[in-house]
Amino acid sequence: MVLRLSKSEIYQCLTKVLHPEIPSHNLVELGMIHDVIVEESQVVVMLALPSLDAPIKPELITAICHAVANLEDGLETDVRVIEMNEVQRSAFQSAVREEMKVSPKRGVSVKEIIAVMSGKGGVGKSSVAGLLAVSLSRRALRIGVLDADITGPSIPKLFGAHQLPEGGLEGIFPIESRMGIKLISINLLLPDEDQPVVWRGPLISRAIQQFWSDIIWGDLDVLVVDLPPGTSDASLTVMQSLPLNGVILVTSPQELAGMVVRKAANMANGLGVRIFGLVENMSYILCPDCGTRIALFGPSQAENTARAIGTPLIGHLPLDPQLSILCDQGEIEAYYSQDFEQISDRVIELTQLQEMKLDDKQEQF
Amino acid sequence: MVLRLSKSEIYQCLTKVLHPEIPSHNLVELGMIHDVIVEESQVVVMLALPSLDAPIKPELITAICHAVANLEDGLETDVRVIEMNEVQRSAFQSAVREEMKVSPKRGVSVKEIIAVMSGKGGVGKSSVAGLLAVSLSRRALRIGVLDADITGPSIPKLFGAHQLPEGGLEGIFPIESRMGIKLISINLLLPDEDQPVVWRGPLISRAIQQFWSDIIWGDLDVLVVDLPPGTSDASLTVMQSLPLNGVILVTSPQELAGMVVRKAANMANGLGVRIFGLVENMSYILCPDCGTRIALFGPSQAENTARAIGTPLIGHLPLDPQLSILCDQGEIEAYYSQDFEQISDRVIELTQLQEMKLDDKQEQF
Repeated sequence: MVLRLSKSEIYQCLTKVLHPEIPSHNLVELGMIHDVIVEESQVVVMLALPSLDAPIKPELITAICHAVANLEDGLETDVRVIEMNEVQRSAFQSAVREEMKVSPKRGVSVKEIIAVMSGKGGVGKSSVAGLLAVSLSRRALRIGVLDADITGPSIPKLFGAHQLPEGGLEGIFPIESRMGIKLISINLLLPDEDQPVVWRGPLISRAIQQFWSDIIWGDLDVLVVDLPPGTSDASLTVMQSLPLNGVILVTSPQELAGMVVRKAANMANGLGVRIFGLVENMSYILCPDCGTRIALFGPSQAENTARAIGTPLIGHLPLDPQLSILCDQGEIEAYYSQDFEQISDRVIELTQLQEMKLDDKQEQF
Repeated sequence: MVLRLSKSEIYQCLTKVLHPEIPSHNLVELGMIHDVIVEESQVVVMLALPSLDAPIKPELITAICHAVANLEDGLETDVRVIEMNEVQRSAFQSAVREEMKVSPKRGVSVKEIIAVMSGKGGVGKSSVAGLLAVSLSRRALRIGVLDADITGPSIPKLFGAHQLPEGGLEGIFPIESRMGIKLISINLLLPDEDQPVVWRGPLISRAIQQFWSDIIWGDLDVLVVDLPPGTSDASLTVMQSLPLNGVILVTSPQELAGMVVRKAANMANGLGVRIFGLVENMSYILCPDCGTRIALFGPSQAENTARAIGTPLIGHLPLDPQLSILCDQGEIEAYYSQDFEQISDRVIELTQLQEMKLDDKQEQF
């Protein structure tokens, strides 16, 4: 059997194969068809994927074979998979982000969106997110915090916030902390804070999207997004659906935490999200009796981790029992530490906040 | 319009409505149709749900209305939702678990499956899971560890395990630690431990199911399952797909952790999974210089948390920098602490392990 099909007929038929996760685009538009080779008795389709182990691979191969098979009876199709180069991958990922992007309410204007991420749990993402919000708010910036941790939300507790957000026809208003920081979290919407949110991924993602699309954030200088641990639905949705300016990574001195943080960094890089820098939390604790500096999680690995990721080390924070106590009392806004102010200074330098003429606005603390 | 339909015709038509998550059962079989009332011009269906805010609610209402509407032209259907009582909920959940259950390989025999859970990240689930495995293994029990944390897997690092699991036609063999503990983790299957697993929920769930169904575990006395933080896909899949005997909850002294742990406990209760007890980790740290006992996360809330959950407090563990260092070196098996041995004793009492005549087998440590 000799094929009478032309290359362009094959390409044309492949424009009918849509990407299941980006349903408004077909594979040709997305740059996923690297080449088509028409051989004597078969069609070879070179499929370019952002990563060779992309979970969608088998589904795409089946869809391509199916589409080509319809062109001519008994047509054999061979799909060969290659990996996109960096330029191709970056273009592909912009298309994905464009597709997943969720629009905020009319009138919402947020200058900078910073996500606090770790991959690992319990390294202090939420307290770093909360302290960053407090520190920037003291500098007279208008701040919001979006708690994207749907199954383990901590933000309301840190700020002692229990009010039910008010809603109207136009959307839902975030609540305001004592300092005027705008907050939204699933825990504010539950009848009881001990109630678990036993949702599978798609509902988690939808909730996070709504925290961006349905909340009347108003005018903010900075929206801080507190991410849950892991690199699954919640992190993916924040990175793909929100117009993030970048992420701050939080680690602890343990090499174990470093490994998981490197996974998170690789995820951000893979999705084209900028990493502002790395904060090491729980670096040491001071003995209240004798002042000894105790390396409670062993020697720091943060320099190595920052170097491996290729991002600046923004600072070290001690484990301060006083902070734990204030957080449990809902009084994070009463906490002040010079160590954190230095981190906050560095965050301002690394983001666009620098240009907001902070000095003009700076208030007395 | 006066309806000529009988109640049994409505019931019959509702046996055609399947539960989307339990596709082999219809709503009548699942005890979800509490009652059907045929009024003059409409049919009222009383739908019983395990919880009033079950995410599946709108989907089920639509399916019921659709099924009933097909019976007679212009038929009006009103679906009223009520909450199942405890007996109904428990029967419903056994049906769900039966449906989701995944079978292990032929020849696999595991006497006790214990999951270590917290809801909160970074409280030491993985080290408690690892230490429990080590302590039970020292007592001559045959132990396996299933690392169900797909996006933040720590188990291989704790045990210094890097071998690629071997596979054959019959399945995949877990690797063995130096002590002979059988281990499986996604990190053993990745070409590079820093590679993130950027998967949405369904793939995470599938991987966990395969760690049970495709691994040649052989004969084990205990399989310890290390759960990730959160109450979403991974925890749901472990609780629904694996024949768990129960969970051990891990918390830290912070009230914030306590809240998230209570969420996890409520999830376990809601799914009919037994809670063996609560372990408080990172209760204090001893100053290496002056011996002061420092409450690094503030005063303990564990008694309150255990009481609120209605489960025994199994024990307190200090934060021991030596353990962090050994874990980073892959030497968790070299760690011994009397505090943990006491916890291990309590776990044996609380589970069926008591009956395995430990004393006969007990080895010298």
